[in-house]
Amino acid sequence: MDKIRVIEVKRSVFDDNDKDAAALRSELKHRGVFLLNLMSSPGSGKTTTLIKTINLLKDKLSVAVMEADIDSDVDAKKIHDATGVKSVQLHTGGMCHLDADMTRQGLNSLDLDGVDLAILENVGNLVCPAEFDTGASKNCMILSVPEGHDKPLKYPLMFSVCDLVLINKMDVAPYFDFDLDKCREYIKLRNEKAEIIPICAKTGEGIDKFADWLINQTKQWKDGN
Amino acid sequence: MDKIRVIEVKRSVFDDNDKDAAALRSELKHRGVFLLNLMSSPGSGKTTTLIKTINLLKDKLSVAVMEADIDSDVDAKKIHDATGVKSVQLHTGGMCHLDADMTRQGLNSLDLDGVDLAILENVGNLVCPAEFDTGASKNCMILSVPEGHDKPLKYPLMFSVCDLVLINKMDVAPYFDFDLDKCREYIKLRNEKAEIIPICAKTGEGIDKFADWLINQTKQWKDGN
Repeated sequence: MDKIRVIEVKRSVFDDNDKDAAALRSELKHRGVFLLNLMSSPGSGKTTTLIKTINLLKDKLSVAVMEADIDSDVDAKKIHDATGVKSVQLHTGGMCHLDADMTRQGLNSLDLDGVDLAILENVGNLVCPAEFDTGASKNCMILSVPEGHDKPLKYPLMFSVCDLVLINKMDVAPYFDFDLDKCREYIKLRNEKAEIIPICAKTGEGIDKFADWLINQTKQWKDGN
Repeated sequence: MDKIRVIEVKRSVFDDNDKDAAALRSELKHRGVFLLNLMSSPGSGKTTTLIKTINLLKDKLSVAVMEADIDSDVDAKKIHDATGVKSVQLHTGGMCHLDADMTRQGLNSLDLDGVDLAILENVGNLVCPAEFDTGASKNCMILSVPEGHDKPLKYPLMFSVCDLVLINKMDVAPYFDFDLDKCREYIKLRNEKAEIIPICAKTGEGIDKFADWLINQTKQWKDGN
């Protein structure tokens, strides 16, 4: 891959995003592809977390990645160079989120034959991406320690739509007033079913747990559970 | 002030936000009120920076603050308790940004008589707030060290609309791969006129420079420059 492919995804023509998302999810189920929608604030460590996790996973699952960004091309290349998996850059043309049709445009540009796990790295934003069902099998978000443990109180929708919350940059916890117990409590206030895994993408702490979660979820998805 | 006031601001009925923003800016100029629009990602330290800065400023300028949030009330109370200045909480009802009419609704709820400097703390989001002129005299953003020095490449519009970029959490720079020179270079690529001040709201580093910038800007605004 000499140059990473860039796909300009356009705003959906569908009025009813929920309907379109449900249709996409059903197609992916039929094809046996588990789609993870990964969301977070800018700079919380989505790309680094993916690189570490994919390198643990790639012998067990066939992985493909879509990197959504407003207009830079850095991440898809970084993912491909560091992991060797298929990756594509999606440009949202200023849009602050992806909807199901934009996600479908991205998936169509990847060859999904044989892919077990497709990962969508959504635009860095704790607000808008939570409002749009992308058609993903599961939603996951990263909250990083420097952002503060109060974020579930301030961005409630994001925490309530996520099945899994990764708490990243645990290595710098001693330098910030971050209370992990309070953070867990606030997340559970918003979403009592959310699973929570503290990680550090830099040191690798907890990445095995995230990889195991993805392997189990992909298996359950394929098994029809 | 027993309980902080909460104002539910509604999406603007104006189609033409730019026209409305220009009208608001002109009214504020006429009244001698400098309005700062402060933007950033979630958790980059907007509220803490404001508290430290207002405590340096409040003997020189009369300050009032609007805290915009999706639905929490924490920040307006925090600002009032820590500084004593007038503050009001604006609820955006899920909206990811403020436009000029929403800003006007907030200003109308504050008594602006005698106020020199009004500060709008926008919703924590590096994407959408950059797209809407609020009618502010100047735009300022905070980028924090843990977010990474590459953010001007990935969120270009935000950096291009800001007159001042504060780089916060300089105290933790040794624990992150943050290159201040590269960050300055990337900001200048987006906006060569942007001023840049490295700060640390926790230790107070650089807060005097931000306070001086606000005092000078407010004076120039009142003097008609």
